[in-house]
Amino acid sequence: MPNAIRTLRVELGARAYPIYIGGGVLGDGELWGRHLQGGPGQGGAGKRAALITNGTVGGLYGAAVRGALPGGVEVSEIELPEGEQYKTLETAAGIFDQLLASGCDRGTTLIALGGGVVGDVAGFAAACYLRGVRFIQAPTTLLAQVDSSVGGKTGVNHPLGKNMIGAFHQPAAVLIDTDTLRSLPPREYAAGVAEIIKYGLIRDAAFYRWLREHAEPLQAREDAAVAEAIERSCANKAAVVAADELEGGLRAILNFGHTFGHAIETAQGYGKWLHGEAVAAGMALAMRLSARLGNIDDGEADQLSDLLRRFNLPAEPPPEMGAAEFLELMRRDKKAADGRIRCVLLEDIGQAALREVRDTDIAALFT
Amino acid sequence: MPNAIRTLRVELGARAYPIYIGGGVLGDGELWGRHLQGGPGQGGAGKRAALITNGTVGGLYGAAVRGALPGGVEVSEIELPEGEQYKTLETAAGIFDQLLASGCDRGTTLIALGGGVVGDVAGFAAACYLRGVRFIQAPTTLLAQVDSSVGGKTGVNHPLGKNMIGAFHQPAAVLIDTDTLRSLPPREYAAGVAEIIKYGLIRDAAFYRWLREHAEPLQAREDAAVAEAIERSCANKAAVVAADELEGGLRAILNFGHTFGHAIETAQGYGKWLHGEAVAAGMALAMRLSARLGNIDDGEADQLSDLLRRFNLPAEPPPEMGAAEFLELMRRDKKAADGRIRCVLLEDIGQAALREVRDTDIAALFT
Repeated sequence: MPNAIRTLRVELGARAYPIYIGGGVLGDGELWGRHLQGGPGQGGAGKRAALITNGTVGGLYGAAVRGALPGGVEVSEIELPEGEQYKTLETAAGIFDQLLASGCDRGTTLIALGGGVVGDVAGFAAACYLRGVRFIQAPTTLLAQVDSSVGGKTGVNHPLGKNMIGAFHQPAAVLIDTDTLRSLPPREYAAGVAEIIKYGLIRDAAFYRWLREHAEPLQAREDAAVAEAIERSCANKAAVVAADELEGGLRAILNFGHTFGHAIETAQGYGKWLHGEAVAAGMALAMRLSARLGNIDDGEADQLSDLLRRFNLPAEPPPEMGAAEFLELMRRDKKAADGRIRCVLLEDIGQAALREVRDTDIAALFT
Repeated sequence: MPNAIRTLRVELGARAYPIYIGGGVLGDGELWGRHLQGGPGQGGAGKRAALITNGTVGGLYGAAVRGALPGGVEVSEIELPEGEQYKTLETAAGIFDQLLASGCDRGTTLIALGGGVVGDVAGFAAACYLRGVRFIQAPTTLLAQVDSSVGGKTGVNHPLGKNMIGAFHQPAAVLIDTDTLRSLPPREYAAGVAEIIKYGLIRDAAFYRWLREHAEPLQAREDAAVAEAIERSCANKAAVVAADELEGGLRAILNFGHTFGHAIETAQGYGKWLHGEAVAAGMALAMRLSARLGNIDDGEADQLSDLLRRFNLPAEPPPEMGAAEFLELMRRDKKAADGRIRCVLLEDIGQAALREVRDTDIAALFT
């Protein structure tokens, strides 16, 4: 089916929203018109949009988006500097400056066109601008498509930790154009696959099996395999988020591999390892910890490491990082409580839970 | 009744919270213990608080609050610079820095001890820190007690406009200690009275009548009159907020006098006129506009001006401001849509509505 659009719905009551997945959706004017502020059934008050992107992505896809927006919509364009090191409060402040300088009012829809950094910062700006305006996510990296575009988490980093400042703010819609993956560098593509594997591990054993069987077409970026992987990942994440919008408990399982992963990113400085690479190594560590605690066979942990390597993802932490550094950094994680480390572990393939972990068990992974 | 505590409840479903009003509530350890993160029925995870205040208020009441917090609670203190000019994203960033540097986790409760600036900035910090932590408001100015402590609006100013960046974030509780008003300078006290008068005008004709009859004891800061005025103001605001938490429509009536008032504040530069003073002159103007449009007798407009003057509040805009400046600034107001000015007008005493207003009718007020 050429150009078939898959549609998923994230069920969040009054904040429910659709995710459209397919080749060419960025150029689909009907979709944009449906979800801009002032679209059908929304009173028609808004005729403004602010397209927030970066130089590379804006150059590749900005014209397609601008051309697809309904006639009469006044579009401001805001270009963010590229890289995780600019996922800061200062960058968000720059967005506020430009929105105000161009007179954007509450009827303005913010469009986040780019990877996770653009989506997280633009989403945070949408959450806080005039105490909240509408926004539409158009993620253009595999990681953003399966991770940050679903769930309403927005935010920026701080020198003392990732995503320390932010808000929950659901998009009005997510447009995932799979054609954008063709221009994605191999490391970034692999980083997205790491998060895809995560969904199988934490709550969908059948999907994990499918991934192991389809590693080859997925690695070759074959359309059908890519769209299937994105849809099943988003469906898994959407189900978790719908059950726990504000991260009361269940949602924590989405952080499988992330407590170790964040420690790696913090130690290395943002930008050296990609987020998905750090999560890959983090999942391998969390899997070994799960095996050590008796929930998982050692063989399963080895199979995961093999699968990660098939996508050229790291299955080991940086060699210079030892137990002491991990422990110190993991204690700063948001999930920590009263200085005790908490970490998502597998109880089985497809089943995860947040557990308090003893320092000695973590330290044992590095001996 | 000495030391009687009046309790009001703001009905917001899962985000409902109580307001305690009375002399000495800041020293009431039982109240603090009940509402800190980790208090009764909350799992007991949190043992941390961050007391956010400024030098003056912290010096007067900080020790009382610290002394009243339950034993075992680790308290960080964050002192903000004083004045509306510091109600900025930079000040919020400074709070994030200090919270992170002192290792405050999700179990931390932020306590905002001070006037509207402290409450708005600390509330915004609570909304965004780790994507949202618990906070308790302890407003120490009359204005903050009847205005910014109820409703969950938090935020900071931008050089291009007030409260342009912010979030809705409800407090866990509000502690209004009427004893703190004894140290309040006369202009600041009067600024609070302006907002109190507003509640009567927009939705409580009986309260407006009561205010006109009790102007003398209220001006003399007599305990009973002050507590009654605060309680009825908070009850009115709470009813509006409960009906319209996210400012979909009804809540706009709380902005009576504010569209003109914000224009005055912006033109003068923040800090020259107090917010309540600008609102007082703004209400006088909005009242005259209502009279001009035929909803209110001219006599009522004159009576409001008289009442404002009894509290030494301005009933006229700054003499140097003319129609053109008001029109330009009012078009930038958040309530404006597609460049058309919208403004809250009275239909009658005790009844208000948001209306689109013609430029010529506004201009006529200044001829």
